[in-house]
Amino acid sequence: MAKSSNSEKLYRKAEKVLAGGVSRNTVFRQPYPNYANSASGCYITDIEGIERIDFANNMAALIHGHSFPPVVDAVIEQLRKGTAYTLASEIEVAFAQHLIKRVKSFERIRFTNSGTEAVMAMIKASRAFTEKAKIAKAEGSYHGTYDFAEVSQTANPSNWGKIDRPSSVPLAHGTPVGVSKDVLIYPYNDIERTLAILDRQAGQIACVIIDPVPHRVGLVPGNDDFIRAVYDWTRRNGALMVFDEVVTFRVNYGGAQQKYTVQPDLTSLGKIIGGGFPVGAVAGRADVMKVFDPHEKSLLLPYSGTFSANPITMTAGYKAMEYFDKTAVKKLNALAQKAVSQIREVIRLADVPVSVTGAGSMFRMHLRPTPPTTYREAYQSKEVSDVVKELLDFMYYKENVLMINTFSCMLSTVMTPKEIDRLTEGLHRAFVELKPKIDKLNLK
Amino acid sequence: MAKSSNSEKLYRKAEKVLAGGVSRNTVFRQPYPNYANSASGCYITDIEGIERIDFANNMAALIHGHSFPPVVDAVIEQLRKGTAYTLASEIEVAFAQHLIKRVKSFERIRFTNSGTEAVMAMIKASRAFTEKAKIAKAEGSYHGTYDFAEVSQTANPSNWGKIDRPSSVPLAHGTPVGVSKDVLIYPYNDIERTLAILDRQAGQIACVIIDPVPHRVGLVPGNDDFIRAVYDWTRRNGALMVFDEVVTFRVNYGGAQQKYTVQPDLTSLGKIIGGGFPVGAVAGRADVMKVFDPHEKSLLLPYSGTFSANPITMTAGYKAMEYFDKTAVKKLNALAQKAVSQIREVIRLADVPVSVTGAGSMFRMHLRPTPPTTYREAYQSKEVSDVVKELLDFMYYKENVLMINTFSCMLSTVMTPKEIDRLTEGLHRAFVELKPKIDKLNLK
Ligand SMILES: Cc1ncc(COP(=O)(O)O)c(C=O)c1O
Ligand SMILES: Cc1ncc(COP(=O)(O)O)c(C=O)c1O
Repeated sequence: MAKSSNSEKLYRKAEKVLAGGVSRNTVFRQPYPNYANSASGCYITDIEGIERIDFANNMAALIHGHSFPPVVDAVIEQLRKGTAYTLASEIEVAFAQHLIKRVKSFERIRFTNSGTEAVMAMIKASRAFTEKAKIAKAEGSYHGTYDFAEVSQTANPSNWGKIDRPSSVPLAHGTPVGVSKDVLIYPYNDIERTLAILDRQAGQIACVIIDPVPHRVGLVPGNDDFIRAVYDWTRRNGALMVFDEVVTFRVNYGGAQQKYTVQPDLTSLGKIIGGGFPVGAVAGRADVMKVFDPHEKSLLLPYSGTFSANPITMTAGYKAMEYFDKTAVKKLNALAQKAVSQIREVIRLADVPVSVTGAGSMFRMHLRPTPPTTYREAYQSKEVSDVVKELLDFMYYKENVLMINTFSCMLSTVMTPKEIDRLTEGLHRAFVELKPKIDKLNLK
Repeated sequence: MAKSSNSEKLYRKAEKVLAGGVSRNTVFRQPYPNYANSASGCYITDIEGIERIDFANNMAALIHGHSFPPVVDAVIEQLRKGTAYTLASEIEVAFAQHLIKRVKSFERIRFTNSGTEAVMAMIKASRAFTEKAKIAKAEGSYHGTYDFAEVSQTANPSNWGKIDRPSSVPLAHGTPVGVSKDVLIYPYNDIERTLAILDRQAGQIACVIIDPVPHRVGLVPGNDDFIRAVYDWTRRNGALMVFDEVVTFRVNYGGAQQKYTVQPDLTSLGKIIGGGFPVGAVAGRADVMKVFDPHEKSLLLPYSGTFSANPITMTAGYKAMEYFDKTAVKKLNALAQKAVSQIREVIRLADVPVSVTGAGSMFRMHLRPTPPTTYREAYQSKEVSDVVKELLDFMYYKENVLMINTFSCMLSTVMTPKEIDRLTEGLHRAFVELKPKIDKLNLK
């Protein structure tokens, strides 16, 4: 870590101007964060000049890695014509058409500037359409920083309550009591308990939010039975079923929702649909999306945003999604499957109690022999997360591999078997090195 | 309007994919919005090939107009190095240093992706720091789409209640009751009533939000007496005084706050600090900003954002703000003063009951002989707003001048007296043409 002295020096300056020295806690790293100098394809170089393979891809946001030439070229062309107007632009219509053709449940769309804004807009639209105030979300799931969407995001054994009735644990200190009261928490993939929880507040619920492969819950896909049970419940109770596909849209050509037998009423999007630029979107049923329509005599949900649908994000996003066609999705998912097989093989070789979960081009490792099936199983005590941190540091500093801090990888289309081999070989060495500590955790 | 057939055709397609046919209600226009083809400097060309002077500047977000060469060049250089990383970057530190040097009340900063996110983060930080749930905001003021910040944004005579105790009117249909309960509404610039309203909830208020020149309230600057009275009240009652300078940061080199005798604890920023790219920020007292610090044993306010502080926005924003130095601010504000004098002159010549308000490089016209001093005075009945719409259409279609739909202008540094002359000559013709209708409104 002595190598990182440029980053350390810069961080000393950063601490004096940025709260905590960072702009996003995701890039925070002890003893100090590292600083990128440049990135190209699936490689990122820090300000010490060290190049690493990037399996984090800006928290899953870059489907083609960095500086993807078709995106760079298109953005440069648009740059010279302006980056944002007080008029509409052709590219937002073209991109909207593309996304709507891509996914069965999308009839109308609205763009925002982040996944946070998309989830907020989706929740507000659900309330406006149903005239109900409450929402339900899964314990442990991350949906951005809107306080209603944050409840129980980091619930822990000291406050999560009984599994039959998980507590609504506010995330931010000072969250108004009313916020937690209006958010119900359900245990993911648990049909019986979830329906019982929903039943208790039937008639008051605007929407049930589901991330079809919730990262923090364990990156375990939702079962079709579960999704269908929630869907049926919402039909019976005047509620909407809405998906957060900010991360999972990469899972299939039509998002993770494509493989289910029922479709969400609304979906929030973000990350990869921006082609590397700030983005979010909410899409879904035309009758529900009408709440945004300024033609309506009484506009139910006024919604604007200075940079929403700006032509740079639209240009970059459209290009990125055009190149992420059915063939590209299939190829990328096959590469991920190869990676997961190889990882399972090194887990066996290193003889460590590690399991892998995931879907499409994403996977996550857990320091337990069987994959977790719930947030409470996936939850990491400090003991466990300390070992995860050591593994991540080993991969980062010794193997020059950048992963997501949940011990996850989000692949990009510019990766090849070569990068997968470097990942798995590095993991092998990391597992061997840290085997005693992993074994000691002794999780089931 | 027959000229706009390309826009009409495109809009017919847009209606089928975008909710209401637009991504932002701000670009909505009856019978259909217009589409930009390109923009350069202070001129914008639509897809019919018609060039207009742009006095809207993407809702006040472009301080140097469109495609400002130093920004374009710097962004192209950064583009080739990547647009977003899961690491920190040098440019966010440099830009943070610049902003903190610029404004006395800024000790630490955090970047977000929009003004909406900035205001939300500012409110959440205030609650986390004070451990209080309620906020106070001015009747009629716009602070983005976070529902707490939206209350009473479009309050009207049918629901705004007595001025001594303005109602908390939720904006979005379906807003949870708890939200409006936690938001107090005060009448802008009215010391006595505001303090009485605050006193009634003393001990429960996290922050009083003030936009120092609130656009929708009438674009009338806050009086120093008023700001100081609120400040003193917050000192006595364990609350924070926070400014929304998303729009007003352009007013002085150090924001609109520069001219007051007291300074806010926190400030939200956006618009011009992004150099044309999606942006927001919250800045202020180091001890308050500590709620964001992941070093703290118990992190009070976890806060991330996939695209927060992305190096493209940071590069563009830093360049734009460097060029908006003290000399540039002074020159631009002088140009706005010239515009306002000329407009007052054509108001006199056309003999119409019109007044002008504003500050720095922004001004707004009102169809009343004396400038409004409160939101309730500035409030437009349908009768009035119909005439405003006619004026805006006259300016847009006949004079080829794009203004903000509140009948406002936000200047850019690339404007010259030539554009100001075209604006004022156009306004002269518009006033003469519509004088009978303006006179008939007969406002006092
Ligand atoms: C599932 C999910 N929803 C929403 C968000 C919020 O998106 P953003 O960071 O763009 O606000 C994220 C971000 O990580 C996410 O993973
Ligand atoms: C005063 C003020 N605050 C906040 C916002 C919200 O900013 P954004 O549109 O970037 O979300 C705006 C936008 O117009 C604004 O004018």
